[in-house]
Amino acid sequence: MTSPSTVVQETPYLVIDVRIAADRYRRLADSFGDTAIYYAVKANPEPSVIRTLVALGSSFDVASPAEIELCLASGAQPQNLSYGNTIKKSADIAFAYARGVRMFAFDSEAELTKLAEHAPGAQVFCRLLVETVNAQWPLGSKFGCSTEMAVELLTQARELGLDPIGVSFHVGSQQLDPAQWAPSVARAAGVFARLRDQGIELTLLNVGGGFPVGYAEPVTPIEDFAKAIQSSADEHFGARLPRIIVEPGRYVAAESGVLRTQVVLVSRKSHDDEKRWVYLDVGRFGGLAETEGEAIRYRISTAHDDAPAGPVILAGPTCDSVDILYQNTPYLLPLGLQPGDLVEIQGTGAYTATYSSAAFNGFPPLATICIGDS
Amino acid sequence: MTSPSTVVQETPYLVIDVRIAADRYRRLADSFGDTAIYYAVKANPEPSVIRTLVALGSSFDVASPAEIELCLASGAQPQNLSYGNTIKKSADIAFAYARGVRMFAFDSEAELTKLAEHAPGAQVFCRLLVETVNAQWPLGSKFGCSTEMAVELLTQARELGLDPIGVSFHVGSQQLDPAQWAPSVARAAGVFARLRDQGIELTLLNVGGGFPVGYAEPVTPIEDFAKAIQSSADEHFGARLPRIIVEPGRYVAAESGVLRTQVVLVSRKSHDDEKRWVYLDVGRFGGLAETEGEAIRYRISTAHDDAPAGPVILAGPTCDSVDILYQNTPYLLPLGLQPGDLVEIQGTGAYTATYSSAAFNGFPPLATICIGDS
Repeated sequence: MTSPSTVVQETPYLVIDVRIAADRYRRLADSFGDTAIYYAVKANPEPSVIRTLVALGSSFDVASPAEIELCLASGAQPQNLSYGNTIKKSADIAFAYARGVRMFAFDSEAELTKLAEHAPGAQVFCRLLVETVNAQWPLGSKFGCSTEMAVELLTQARELGLDPIGVSFHVGSQQLDPAQWAPSVARAAGVFARLRDQGIELTLLNVGGGFPVGYAEPVTPIEDFAKAIQSSADEHFGARLPRIIVEPGRYVAAESGVLRTQVVLVSRKSHDDEKRWVYLDVGRFGGLAETEGEAIRYRISTAHDDAPAGPVILAGPTCDSVDILYQNTPYLLPLGLQPGDLVEIQGTGAYTATYSSAAFNGFPPLATICIGDS
Repeated sequence: MTSPSTVVQETPYLVIDVRIAADRYRRLADSFGDTAIYYAVKANPEPSVIRTLVALGSSFDVASPAEIELCLASGAQPQNLSYGNTIKKSADIAFAYARGVRMFAFDSEAELTKLAEHAPGAQVFCRLLVETVNAQWPLGSKFGCSTEMAVELLTQARELGLDPIGVSFHVGSQQLDPAQWAPSVARAAGVFARLRDQGIELTLLNVGGGFPVGYAEPVTPIEDFAKAIQSSADEHFGARLPRIIVEPGRYVAAESGVLRTQVVLVSRKSHDDEKRWVYLDVGRFGGLAETEGEAIRYRISTAHDDAPAGPVILAGPTCDSVDILYQNTPYLLPLGLQPGDLVEIQGTGAYTATYSSAAFNGFPPLATICIGDS
């Protein structure tokens, strides 16, 4: 990328190189072949990122009216939007429908009822609750429903005048293991078979996102994920292969971002403290929300990375004690690190700026600068 | 308070009744007598709250240049501001100094060096690292230094041309136990004595904030905290009683706020799910950051609180799985609860709106409406 050192303003700020997001998108598209890509806008909704992905032929997974507006304003067509949030206000469903969106996720009877009323005739897919391991940002049980309930709800969808098109699931974000998709693909195939028995031919298999990024350590290449998903689909669906879609967010956006921050303070709590505390001008409430529980471990670099280094605890600048980035994860930074030194946090293009707090401690949200936009 | 039902706009929004904040301030002032009150602006920086507290004679604990600007614009005098954040950029110290702020916290040599350069001659106090229990939002070890280091740094402060005035500590936010102050007061007295031996007479004891609010359960009255602090100061300082200051934020602001939200969805994941999932249009990234780890447990009310109720898991509206408010804490809500029903979250006047994310999932930050401003 163009050296971010050419872009100078008061830290902290995030530099997004749109060309990297485009490269990541192309590699994903090459890997997945015919699979349609619905970029998860929530990962990074910078307009120049969205415009670039529209030009590359991406579809979009949206979570709110604001994300719908953004995609349409960036040139996306409403038929290429999927309203993937299973928790939608009636007014927001009506808004989406009025804008031409015709594809909606659900995982409950109450949501289906809202969709029938406010998006009549729309294509709907049911999200399955699946158990997975090996995700660094797991999705728990907040989304999805049991297989049994999915079968009932998809049947009910038709009775309500909706168009039941398929199922979705998500194996957890920053999922390191390509094998985690297969059990859910099998479960989805079971739902397809049950619906077929009732005369409903589902056509869409949405295998979600979760494809990992090499933050601090290398990860399995995306091609292996694509192969694993394709081969489990072949195995469980055979000749009746549905249309497969993926919803990557992190994979496309993360590596496009570098967060430039500065050291505010280096200290020890007592003379025999083994680790130094390094306080940066960005923290958990300034855009690094995914360091909660030290889940996402970013690569961190300084101008003195060749110098002798020692262990540190990394923390943010607010008066909140939970505003600590890494206390248990070993991080080494130069022993000569001083207040005012620049620190770069790599791979911060996804799930960062939009998370940052509106005004906690009087600090503004993280500023973003886009480069490489054509 | 004036019924918030008279204020109608799209949920979610926070209603702050400034008169309640004023009442809480008065009760605190009555309880603490001569003790000076430095309101922790970070708890709720609404300009009408700050203006009201200025009129009541409050001083202010500020964490950033923006908070300094806010206080000065609201009528506070710079000599009544204390820059309590121990992690300050040099430029921010210089800013504060230029605006007339002359009282600064520190807990490290590096910070002291910055203060000596950018706030020459200023009054400085050293924050002690103290171990406490019984705080619902504990402060861990991010702030403060050892007693030994405090003694050295306060001595060094004078050598650097600063005016070492005292020590501070914080026993953790939402601290339920008045007895938690005494050990730290004793430790502070030890620092005073050591400094006196070196010819430095400290005059300020900053006992921090942390005074609790009765969120879901009653707490010990504030008068008991005031008595406990006064009596431990009497015990450990005797006739040489320093000037005592407190830094309440939550105690003043929390009960002034009611967060009005609506139910977006009620669902079960399977037919045999014991608990319903209730999704609101506000969550951890919309202002309820202190539900992290289910630490702060708000009182929640609906229009149907007399109706039969059952256990729920409460979650926010974003596509993030960690956006769950209460999964382990037992909460009961009416069995008849439906999408669109209004829900009020009580005691949300502190540490809410400013924490809310700038645009996560395309949702805007939490809106605030102030009522009762004179």
